[in-house]
Amino acid sequence: MNIPKATAKRLPLYYRYLSILHDAGKKKVSSTEFSEAVQIDSASIRRDFSYFGALGKRGYGYDVDDLLDFFKKILNQDRLTNVALVGVGNLGKALLNYNFKSSTNIRISAGFDINPEMTGKIVAGVPVYDVKELEKQISDQQIKIAILTVPADVAQKLADEVIAAGVKGIMNFTPIRLSAPSDIQIQTLDLATELQTLAYFLDSKDKK
Amino acid sequence: MNIPKATAKRLPLYYRYLSILHDAGKKKVSSTEFSEAVQIDSASIRRDFSYFGALGKRGYGYDVDDLLDFFKKILNQDRLTNVALVGVGNLGKALLNYNFKSSTNIRISAGFDINPEMTGKIVAGVPVYDVKELEKQISDQQIKIAILTVPADVAQKLADEVIAAGVKGIMNFTPIRLSAPSDIQIQTLDLATELQTLAYFLDSKDKK
Repeated sequence: MNIPKATAKRLPLYYRYLSILHDAGKKKVSSTEFSEAVQIDSASIRRDFSYFGALGKRGYGYDVDDLLDFFKKILNQDRLTNVALVGVGNLGKALLNYNFKSSTNIRISAGFDINPEMTGKIVAGVPVYDVKELEKQISDQQIKIAILTVPADVAQKLADEVIAAGVKGIMNFTPIRLSAPSDIQIQTLDLATELQTLAYFLDSKDKK
Repeated sequence: MNIPKATAKRLPLYYRYLSILHDAGKKKVSSTEFSEAVQIDSASIRRDFSYFGALGKRGYGYDVDDLLDFFKKILNQDRLTNVALVGVGNLGKALLNYNFKSSTNIRISAGFDINPEMTGKIVAGVPVYDVKELEKQISDQQIKIAILTVPADVAQKLADEVIAAGVKGIMNFTPIRLSAPSDIQIQTLDLATELQTLAYFLDSKDKK
């Protein structure tokens, strides 16, 4: 299915709110209510939903359980996705502890580091391997997604290594713009840049 | 200055690479070289730069120091921006240790938590206050930006509190879509959603 990237980015958000509604015992939700909860205008929601066929009824709203089942399938929430974490420093450790499990069916199943104080141990329930075992573990565990939380100067090298081992998607927390073959999906989340952009927006508002 | 959001998001990236070039002793950079380094096409770079007046010369490229000075002013890199961190859990602690200082002129100057084991201490050089002191500290330190790394169920309450204390921009790491007055800038960085979106894209590629 070919859907716009903007729509795809909103799907996990829809899924999240439907889960909350479901857990609260709600059976249906009006399109206005849904729009207010996710803070996306009703027209965009209707357009997003239209890519998957008509999911709501005029004057009735949306059936929570139906929608939830639907998005669960779309987002593959019914099967577990294993992810590798490369770099168990401060941010890496925080992500291991967080481990996405409360809200998604994604789980960090292996950590990698070079620091002998970290490797060979289980941290927050996840084994941390020496980076030498990276290729074998990623291949053995058929891991397709890696989170990169390593120092900038080794980011490209480790990206190359996880790709060589079979990874198809990288969530890049380093400030480096990684080079990769075109079939590899890279999502960069540079926290410093995000914070700087926020500061810039505030500042340019002040000057108006 | 009113520039498109997409342009504003690229400014910190431009700044980052110019700093690297500057530190490496480079005096000028061709537009091709710059484009390859930041992985943004030359046309977009030219358009972005055009919002700030003509910054390059045809056949010469860009003067690194000139550009760097220019973006430094735009991004207010010549003065320190203090930021509050609300919620010193795993992710909060990781952000305190990271503290953005290597690459930006932004610094977390105060942390807040309710856990008595965390408060009243200095963590990674930053004082962690009890959340009761939030209003006083944010106002005393004239902090305009807060990073929110708290549990979902208290996210809105704490957002309201930092806004009441004078904060104008929130970097929201919680899965909650925060409500705020329209003059408040909110940037949500929901790591689980980002990871889920990445997984979804890989998956929909597989099916093609």
